[in-house]
Amino acid sequence: VAEREFRLEELAQRIGGRVEGDAGLCIRGIATLDQAGPHELSFLTNRKYRKLARTTRAGALLVPPDSGLTGVNLLESREPYLALSRLLELFHPAPQRRPEVSPQAWISAEARIGREVAVGPFAVIEAEVRIEDHVRVGAGAVVGEGCHVGEGTELRPKVVLYPGTRVGAQCLIHAGVVLGGDGFGFASTSDKHHKVPQLGTVVVEDDVEIGANSTVDRGTLGETVVGQGSKIDNLVMLAHGVRVGPGALLAAQSGIAGSTTLGARTTFAGQAGAAGHLNIADGCVVAAKSAVFNDLERGSFVAGVPAVDHRVWKRAQALTRRLPDLQKKLRELERRLQALEQSAQED
Amino acid sequence: VAEREFRLEELAQRIGGRVEGDAGLCIRGIATLDQAGPHELSFLTNRKYRKLARTTRAGALLVPPDSGLTGVNLLESREPYLALSRLLELFHPAPQRRPEVSPQAWISAEARIGREVAVGPFAVIEAEVRIEDHVRVGAGAVVGEGCHVGEGTELRPKVVLYPGTRVGAQCLIHAGVVLGGDGFGFASTSDKHHKVPQLGTVVVEDDVEIGANSTVDRGTLGETVVGQGSKIDNLVMLAHGVRVGPGALLAAQSGIAGSTTLGARTTFAGQAGAAGHLNIADGCVVAAKSAVFNDLERGSFVAGVPAVDHRVWKRAQALTRRLPDLQKKLRELERRLQALEQSAQED
Amino acid sequence: VAEREFRLEELAQRIGGRVEGDAGLCIRGIATLDQAGPHELSFLTNRKYRKLARTTRAGALLVPPDSGLTGVNLLESREPYLALSRLLELFHPAPQRRPEVSPQAWISAEARIGREVAVGPFAVIEAEVRIEDHVRVGAGAVVGEGCHVGEGTELRPKVVLYPGTRVGAQCLIHAGVVLGGDGFGFASTSDKHHKVPQLGTVVVEDDVEIGANSTVDRGTLGETVVGQGSKIDNLVMLAHGVRVGPGALLAAQSGIAGSTTLGARTTFAGQAGAAGHLNIADGCVVAAKSAVFNDLERGSFVAGVPAVDHRVWKRAQALTRRLPDLQKKLRELERRLQALEQSAQED
Repeated sequence: VAEREFRLEELAQRIGGRVEGDAGLCIRGIATLDQAGPHELSFLTNRKYRKLARTTRAGALLVPPDSGLTGVNLLESREPYLALSRLLELFHPAPQRRPEVSPQAWISAEARIGREVAVGPFAVIEAEVRIEDHVRVGAGAVVGEGCHVGEGTELRPKVVLYPGTRVGAQCLIHAGVVLGGDGFGFASTSDKHHKVPQLGTVVVEDDVEIGANSTVDRGTLGETVVGQGSKIDNLVMLAHGVRVGPGALLAAQSGIAGSTTLGARTTFAGQAGAAGHLNIADGCVVAAKSAVFNDLERGSFVAGVPAVDHRVWKRAQALTRRLPDLQKKLRELERRLQALEQSAQED
Repeated sequence: VAEREFRLEELAQRIGGRVEGDAGLCIRGIATLDQAGPHELSFLTNRKYRKLARTTRAGALLVPPDSGLTGVNLLESREPYLALSRLLELFHPAPQRRPEVSPQAWISAEARIGREVAVGPFAVIEAEVRIEDHVRVGAGAVVGEGCHVGEGTELRPKVVLYPGTRVGAQCLIHAGVVLGGDGFGFASTSDKHHKVPQLGTVVVEDDVEIGANSTVDRGTLGETVVGQGSKIDNLVMLAHGVRVGPGALLAAQSGIAGSTTLGARTTFAGQAGAAGHLNIADGCVVAAKSAVFNDLERGSFVAGVPAVDHRVWKRAQALTRRLPDLQKKLRELERRLQALEQSAQED
Repeated sequence: VAEREFRLEELAQRIGGRVEGDAGLCIRGIATLDQAGPHELSFLTNRKYRKLARTTRAGALLVPPDSGLTGVNLLESREPYLALSRLLELFHPAPQRRPEVSPQAWISAEARIGREVAVGPFAVIEAEVRIEDHVRVGAGAVVGEGCHVGEGTELRPKVVLYPGTRVGAQCLIHAGVVLGGDGFGFASTSDKHHKVPQLGTVVVEDDVEIGANSTVDRGTLGETVVGQGSKIDNLVMLAHGVRVGPGALLAAQSGIAGSTTLGARTTFAGQAGAAGHLNIADGCVVAAKSAVFNDLERGSFVAGVPAVDHRVWKRAQALTRRLPDLQKKLRELERRLQALEQSAQED
């Protein structure tokens, strides 16, 4: 790998930031606080690491303005995390590989494959599939009949698209993701759960990322939709008929039950969930491990099971742990009350 | 796709229902309330959508008797969800594909393959496997040594059956499911967790569906059993020695720890769990996000962590959120009591 | 399979235990209490099954000393579960298969493959990979560019190692596991979530087991580490920059958020979780379904959401369910107080 090297002032220019300290310092890479050396840039994305910032050997630190840090070269940015993302790309440009279609892949003669497409060994592309330009299909991925994969999208190894799934442009679908499996719909009679045919599909819009081994089921009749720019972590479940985003963030192991809608830029933290047939409005935030059982208004920030306003939840949780004290106090009051009652009777 | 078309009265006949309105209306498909047109049938499976039923352009609505809806053609059925499932099959019959064994599959010479079996590209069928008639093995699926797959069962792409797994007839196993992985069993000493060999197997009985990326571990010595007619959603975990069903329903991301038994027609809602070595009797229902830590009697409906009767849980949760009020009230009583005590002393 | 047979006294010798009863009894296998016959050994690993131990037909029982059981031959061991694991290996030695490299696998000419390595059909081994001796790569597994797989390690079918992943010696990685997927890192601006390049890697140390369909993400810059001898169950999620173990035990569906460190021999029970950027010290135990939101001191045993000392949690939970009684008592006290206040005024 060719080494790249920039002066601190060049980096400041590229991210629209400013230098506090030695603007001519030569920076050759980016590293964590504990590992960075004198020609590396490090960063403070979490306040918890402030102490580490005092002992780091890093040549410079990427920080927000007014960090209050002294004795170290600073690269200040109003959006340091975004700046970090740009600088990482600068130092580690994505390798340009020549796209190849493996002779070990199985591609239907009735599939239409765009230009500059890469297909890994043992990938399967079925009939009536349309793969746009610059798509990468990983080893062992399966693209079922009639699927559509948009320009520049990457399907990592072992991704499975059930027939009819549509994935937009510039998406990144990680290994083991399954899109378009049957929704969980059964009509139960006294002796049997009868399968309700799942005839809808899954639509993933542009610029979506879906983490490893997550699953998105097809709608019963309509579409399950992952809206533009949504980012989904690993082992997440979206049930049939769910609509997400645009711009939603769903952390690992969260799950959304059937027919629920998540508004624009909704956030679910890890292991959170929502029941079915709900309307969760734009900008809602659901805390880790919580479960939403009711519709939520725009901008709600909720926690708990069932999820309520996060301040209400926090206070209730704190008091729950003090219930033994409350109980003791109650008993004490009763004793004192009894004493008063007796002395009143004796009067 | 050839268009199918039926009069409303024909549909009523097929599902044993009755028409309220224009019995001769020609129906060409089934669609959701907001998408259905004047020659499509729609349906009301959830009361929440009753409002939509008033504005739908659907030609007719599939409803339970006494729906109270007027001004629209009705197709009444005492089991409307079951009727829906039948009508969906009527309008969308499963495509009849000629079963093919891909020349790109790897099939051991010592495997026995039935008639009319389909095997996708890059599927692997190991020695001593027995595949019955009309089975479909998806692209890239792996059927380990000595497995048995019953008549008419479908393994979707990337399913992995560890050696010795037995799957019954008419099952549907979705993409990425792993059956027969090692149970999580270790004998821990001060320096090491020693693996306890996992020598049992997994038995999936007839008419079972298992959702994408779920996992069922083999028993340590005995069997892990998914009982007949059980339906399991995506990303569900069944540990070693678990016995489920018959007729159980396990929603997405639920998990059952080792050696626990779930009785007939037990239901676990999403993200629910059960600890190990429990006996959960027939017909129990466990609410979403709950965790069962004790045996449950027949027909229990429980919620919470630990799970208790759902009414007890509901009431406790409501009061938990009112703990700040309780605390305030307690303080007020204490003040008043103190005042009384003082005036009593002054007397 | 050749039958193996040992006298009870021979088994005692091999595990360093002692016989109470017929030392010459011939044992031909190991089975569960309800299935064992008169020439089989059974075992008591959970007290719940003590009743079964009275009615078992087993020829002998593997028990701890002072089990108090009578009327049955006993094989006593101070570590019966460890002894069970050794005896299972004795009766069921792992089959010795001749390692074969399938001609249907795709192996880069630039990969280095050790001696006695097995590679299944449709496995993919990319350039610059190094596979040590006695490794087994399952059918359809994908080993990305530059990965390293240590001696004797087994990758089961469909495992995916993203480029640069390092797996130590004597590991067992189950089907569908994905190691090295991108961490969930985005710099959000008002219009977009910008991907933060994930440039680190995953390091799995020696003697680690990871269960089916679990996922471990690569670090943003540094490593995500699964420490030596750690055992991870199915459907577990380890986020970017997490450090686990050595000797950690993570049960099914647990999840650890980014940059959190779990100390040596930490245990997470099923469906438990930890927030990001935490330090969970050596020997901590997190109860099932709990979520850790704060650093934990060495040896903590916590439960709940947020997780607190498990005794505090247990007591609070019990009182929560008695909140209706507390409320009733509070109302009663208020009535009695009111009565006193009135009579005081009347005085």
